Amino acid sequence: MNFKSNHIPRATLERMAVYLEVLNSLSRDGVTLISSEELGTFCNTNGAQVRKDLAYFGEFGVRGLGYYVEELSHAIASSLGINREWRAVLVGMGHMARSLLMHREMRMHTYRIVGVFDIDPTRVGQEILGIKVLNIQELKGLESQLKPEIGIITSRPDHVQYIVNRLLDAGVRGILNFTPTRVPVPEGVFVEYVDYLHHLYALSFNLSSHQS
Amino acid sequence: MNFKSNHIPRATLERMAVYLEVLNSLSRDGVTLISSEELGTFCNTNGAQVRKDLAYFGEFGVRGLGYYVEELSHAIASSLGINREWRAVLVGMGHMARSLLMHREMRMHTYRIVGVFDIDPTRVGQEILGIKVLNIQELKGLESQLKPEIGIITSRPDHVQYIVNRLLDAGVRGILNFTPTRVPVPEGVFVEYVDYLHHLYALSFNLSSHQS
Repeated sequence: MNFKSNHIPRATLERMAVYLEVLNSLSRDGVTLISSEELGTFCNTNGAQVRKDLAYFGEFGVRGLGYYVEELSHAIASSLGINREWRAVLVGMGHMARSLLMHREMRMHTYRIVGVFDIDPTRVGQEILGIKVLNIQELKGLESQLKPEIGIITSRPDHVQYIVNRLLDAGVRGILNFTPTRVPVPEGVFVEYVDYLHHLYALSFNLSSHQS
Repeated sequence: MNFKSNHIPRATLERMAVYLEVLNSLSRDGVTLISSEELGTFCNTNGAQVRKDLAYFGEFGVRGLGYYVEELSHAIASSLGINREWRAVLVGMGHMARSLLMHREMRMHTYRIVGVFDIDPTRVGQEILGIKVLNIQELKGLESQLKPEIGIITSRPDHVQYIVNRLLDAGVRGILNFTPTRVPVPEGVFVEYVDYLHHLYALSFNLSSHQS
């Protein structure tokens, strides 16, 4: 189980998230064993793709039998590095921040929001789901207390570079950016851009192409 | 400009969304001409990638000069099928719905929200940013009035299949699903799943792999 690859294609990572979701749901339903074909069907893909994706992370399953649901779920979580708690700070108080705070993975503390910050002084001091919003300028001073690893930017698209700099100053090395603003970061820092626009574009493109 | 491809890789579509964002921002700043190298730099990629991506949609640009910013922006929008208004209904009133309603592309009416629905009777009748929330059961009866093309599901993950069936009944052929629930749909219907979890997983994976 140890020849873990260092580069995982994005499409594989996306499917891993789906596999994990499905495996956890199966586990809750009491299912203990599943074939790659069955898992593929549940995840809108096929057995060959499941086997290929899992091969990036190691060898799983029992030939002719399938995968033990709980074991596979734990193995995937461990491979992805999510078998522990990650400390995250949210920057930008608004509907997206609220939606995130109510997300199951956040509430289950895989990603634990240890602080909420904003750049807008009129929002600082307000409360969001019981958490007091602090000024982003205070983040650095709270570094040793909060130990933030991941910064989630749900602010408006202005001042994103300033926010990123404050996050890096406080030791953050992974950033989830919900704004479309592209920001350069030093080596060893990872930024992920969440954008659902391209999903809408894909729909428009497909619907336009298939109109008779 | 006519040898438009029918299959566009997902990564290309994602970058097209970024190119469009950057081109529109350049256009607002009064920039009229840009090289593929410059556009690549602005979009965290390179000139060769820009040229390769654009080739899926046709021939653009003037050799040795670059692209006319506004012309390219219009050509991309036309290729993606977003040079017109798309009529969308939102199902599931909550923070994500509010966040979406405030999104620029929604407010600029590329994607015009023509109705907000919910399955939860306690939410029906409430108002969200001035729009009255209707019962999803009423959608079919409003089909000829609303003419919905796209359905955006921001509800809880329960009853998603039921919601999808109501959308299809009302003529919707494109679905943007913010829940992780996988739903089978008939031929000719397109479903896009928006999931930011895999972005967090990518961060965890990268941060774990690069920890010393």
